[in-house]
Amino acid sequence: MPTKSKIPEGYNKDITIATIGSHTALQILKGAKDEGFATLVICTEKNRQVYERFNSADDMEIVKDYKDILSEKFQKKLLEKNVVLIPHGSFVEYVGAKNIEKKLAVPMFGNKGTLDWESDRKKAKVWLTDAGVKAPREFKDPKDIKDLVIVKFPGAKGGRGYFTTFCEEDFSDNLKLCKNPQEYTIQEYVVGTRFYPHYFYSPLTDKVELLSMDIRYESNADGLARTAGQTDVEPTFTVTGNTPVVVRESLLPKILEMGDAVVKSSKKLFAPGLIGPFCIETICKDDLEFVAFEISARIVAGTNLYVQGSPYSQLIYDEPMSTGRRIAREIKIAQNKRMLDRIIY
Amino acid sequence: MPTKSKIPEGYNKDITIATIGSHTALQILKGAKDEGFATLVICTEKNRQVYERFNSADDMEIVKDYKDILSEKFQKKLLEKNVVLIPHGSFVEYVGAKNIEKKLAVPMFGNKGTLDWESDRKKAKVWLTDAGVKAPREFKDPKDIKDLVIVKFPGAKGGRGYFTTFCEEDFSDNLKLCKNPQEYTIQEYVVGTRFYPHYFYSPLTDKVELLSMDIRYESNADGLARTAGQTDVEPTFTVTGNTPVVVRESLLPKILEMGDAVVKSSKKLFAPGLIGPFCIETICKDDLEFVAFEISARIVAGTNLYVQGSPYSQLIYDEPMSTGRRIAREIKIAQNKRMLDRIIY
Amino acid sequence: MPTKSKIPEGYNKDITIATIGSHTALQILKGAKDEGFATLVICTEKNRQVYERFNSADDMEIVKDYKDILSEKFQKKLLEKNVVLIPHGSFVEYVGAKNIEKKLAVPMFGNKGTLDWESDRKKAKVWLTDAGVKAPREFKDPKDIKDLVIVKFPGAKGGRGYFTTFCEEDFSDNLKLCKNPQEYTIQEYVVGTRFYPHYFYSPLTDKVELLSMDIRYESNADGLARTAGQTDVEPTFTVTGNTPVVVRESLLPKILEMGDAVVKSSKKLFAPGLIGPFCIETICKDDLEFVAFEISARIVAGTNLYVQGSPYSQLIYDEPMSTGRRIAREIKIAQNKRMLDRIIY
Repeated sequence: MPTKSKIPEGYNKDITIATIGSHTALQILKGAKDEGFATLVICTEKNRQVYERFNSADDMEIVKDYKDILSEKFQKKLLEKNVVLIPHGSFVEYVGAKNIEKKLAVPMFGNKGTLDWESDRKKAKVWLTDAGVKAPREFKDPKDIKDLVIVKFPGAKGGRGYFTTFCEEDFSDNLKLCKNPQEYTIQEYVVGTRFYPHYFYSPLTDKVELLSMDIRYESNADGLARTAGQTDVEPTFTVTGNTPVVVRESLLPKILEMGDAVVKSSKKLFAPGLIGPFCIETICKDDLEFVAFEISARIVAGTNLYVQGSPYSQLIYDEPMSTGRRIAREIKIAQNKRMLDRIIY
Repeated sequence: MPTKSKIPEGYNKDITIATIGSHTALQILKGAKDEGFATLVICTEKNRQVYERFNSADDMEIVKDYKDILSEKFQKKLLEKNVVLIPHGSFVEYVGAKNIEKKLAVPMFGNKGTLDWESDRKKAKVWLTDAGVKAPREFKDPKDIKDLVIVKFPGAKGGRGYFTTFCEEDFSDNLKLCKNPQEYTIQEYVVGTRFYPHYFYSPLTDKVELLSMDIRYESNADGLARTAGQTDVEPTFTVTGNTPVVVRESLLPKILEMGDAVVKSSKKLFAPGLIGPFCIETICKDDLEFVAFEISARIVAGTNLYVQGSPYSQLIYDEPMSTGRRIAREIKIAQNKRMLDRIIY
Repeated sequence: MPTKSKIPEGYNKDITIATIGSHTALQILKGAKDEGFATLVICTEKNRQVYERFNSADDMEIVKDYKDILSEKFQKKLLEKNVVLIPHGSFVEYVGAKNIEKKLAVPMFGNKGTLDWESDRKKAKVWLTDAGVKAPREFKDPKDIKDLVIVKFPGAKGGRGYFTTFCEEDFSDNLKLCKNPQEYTIQEYVVGTRFYPHYFYSPLTDKVELLSMDIRYESNADGLARTAGQTDVEPTFTVTGNTPVVVRESLLPKILEMGDAVVKSSKKLFAPGLIGPFCIETICKDDLEFVAFEISARIVAGTNLYVQGSPYSQLIYDEPMSTGRRIAREIKIAQNKRMLDRIIY
């Protein structure tokens, strides 16, 4: 069971929704405001202009380093404001999954134990395998590289540093150029269309909702595609943005089943399991089978496309429902039902 | 003249809008609900979860095989509910254009005769040619292949099984691998940007409306583009989803003229002609000329992007108007004006 | 200082917002209508159907040639209707930046002097350099071509006629095929993801707003990408449409800083500087640095995606705010504050 923050009494009346100013903060804070919560953004001097210009939050705390939020003094300040923290990709990256789990006493939306399972590639693989979700083949020995593979590193953030290769020799040449060549994963490069469905699991209703989906827009891979082979530049995979997509309707059963399976498995592997938003990064092959190469067990950046809701969320809610707003809605419902302890840890 | 269902008196008061659970059903049912109609979804056990989770319909009928809807008993049940069926791509594929035309007595939105003209590649070509819409060159003899061509098959659904080739020898090699090598069409591969405009023709106003447009997202062609030639995998064209697009405003006259011409021609070729939604699948060459390689004379899946309306529909309606909702709106107007017989067959 | 139209007294009561029927006119006119203005579209016989079908304007003027709007008689007619003209890309192209500056007495939104700075590639470069925005390297001598470059021409509209090349010999071969081979610019081809942020600078609040962003959809480059090197066709760059995108949130500080810098520099270079909408066409490299290869100092066509607002505009306005509507909103605020002379020239 994860470390559980004690939820102070005040939280049943007034909550301030807070997050770190990056990743999906604009959306999270807008969603919180739309649901009637007070809002707070924690940011560095460099990023404050973004949150000021978009009138994102009622309140702002400036930090020098995001790890500062772990200090007793800072946490006390947050607790006085009845803060519920919303984790996102940069939040986990800047503060650290272990720190969040061990050192953060401020109530956070979701199961803190989840963050470790998604940020550790090996654990994530155990999880996906347990859920019966098909994953790309992996090769331990570079000698086994016979066709195109992608080489990934544990420290790589947003795809930076990944490379592709098609034989052992080229693998070795590429590896020499890496800053951090020790712990690589060699994965089959699955050719197909990419779909990153954005799910939301509510423990209050025990339902998985499909809220939206996106395609990552990666530099330089998406630019290189347009050069018609006129340059020797090799593809790289730094995530720079996201573009919208809908999936063929007859593929929705498969997408919903993957979401259900991952939630079910999470309850077994790290009870109470996954809570709130998650994403399974997939490729749809031309035989219409999905292969999942990653899982994100918190809000993903692709949801930023849908501040006004998506074609999918609109079917369920009939009002603009971003993932950020859905989180705030879940907190509001839990607050009203006195069930905050089911979704906040 | 197409087989015409007699429209029973009850339809002038209460109508239930129904469709098969696939393709664009989520959108069609939401649109019907937004226009105040009762709704019914017909689906298989496998797909029911999709329509339940998105709260799609007031009512649900489970079938083992979609052809079951042709049975007298099933049709009687639909007629008792004053059902108007909305056809879509999977509807036509599962039930069959001929069956819909000959065996379906339940009133259906649109001209049943249209389905045959669009699902038969040769007839579709006659139609586009009659409308004066430019089509890709076709080659009868594989010997004439001098540059890149795409080879298509009559049975292929959603682009599956299409292949590209650039010479006779490679054509033959590829053809050997096909399950269904008899009736191929060899088409010039036109290089350019793809635009799939979603039109709606209303017989009540005699106007063609441009409601939205999309780009098909195809596996593996759209994934292969990102591999920078590092793999020998050949491009395939299975439609897996859709992405949004707007066209250069100065190209709208051409796009509207194509829509008008196709409607005009349809009235001549199969009176009363096309009714409701249609799509002309085009490629825009770098000299800004459009080439049309297909026509869909019913709602297309790309409209699923626009459950909340599109940049184009918003200009006309100033309220969220998907193609699905536009269909329901047309039925409502016809019902109020006692003109259902103009749009339902 | 730019030529300044005298703003007649009537403009403080009733204004008609007018533009030329092309480029972004649908959006501009809808935005004007949403803000309560009378609207007028000036178009040719060929384009009138577009604006009629989308019910774009209260009033329509048909011209044979867009330069006709420069005639005394036509201008008098516009002045009688208290017209404020909204410039856009085709407006500038059809009428001419110099003509707009010297011969147009009808009040126009924005600083007329800006148009010359953005339509002249050399001046645009001076501007971007002064603003400290990183630009692609340029090569004066074709002998210096060592890697992929893109060759651009001053007369080229919408990217038509641009070509890429990777060595001097191929450059010469390509140049021979050009209609207009004299004044080329040889620019480093920067490989990365393209982001075209749509900014709006309000002199009334002295703030730069980020309203939306897009990716240009170019024929044939975006189609050629999907052919997996199976054809010898060379990439071309005719803009045919636009697709939506959001940028990684942590890159927003850089994007906002570029916008601020360009506005600041414009005040220095051509006071009162840039007014209203502008766009910096950028490429994001895989090290997350932006390179800007163009600037548009008026509304760009990519904003047509966001007739209903964008994920960014929604954060600021919480109502559908296209760039077209934002222009009308600025005019309305200025009218109410009797500050029209600050934004109209």
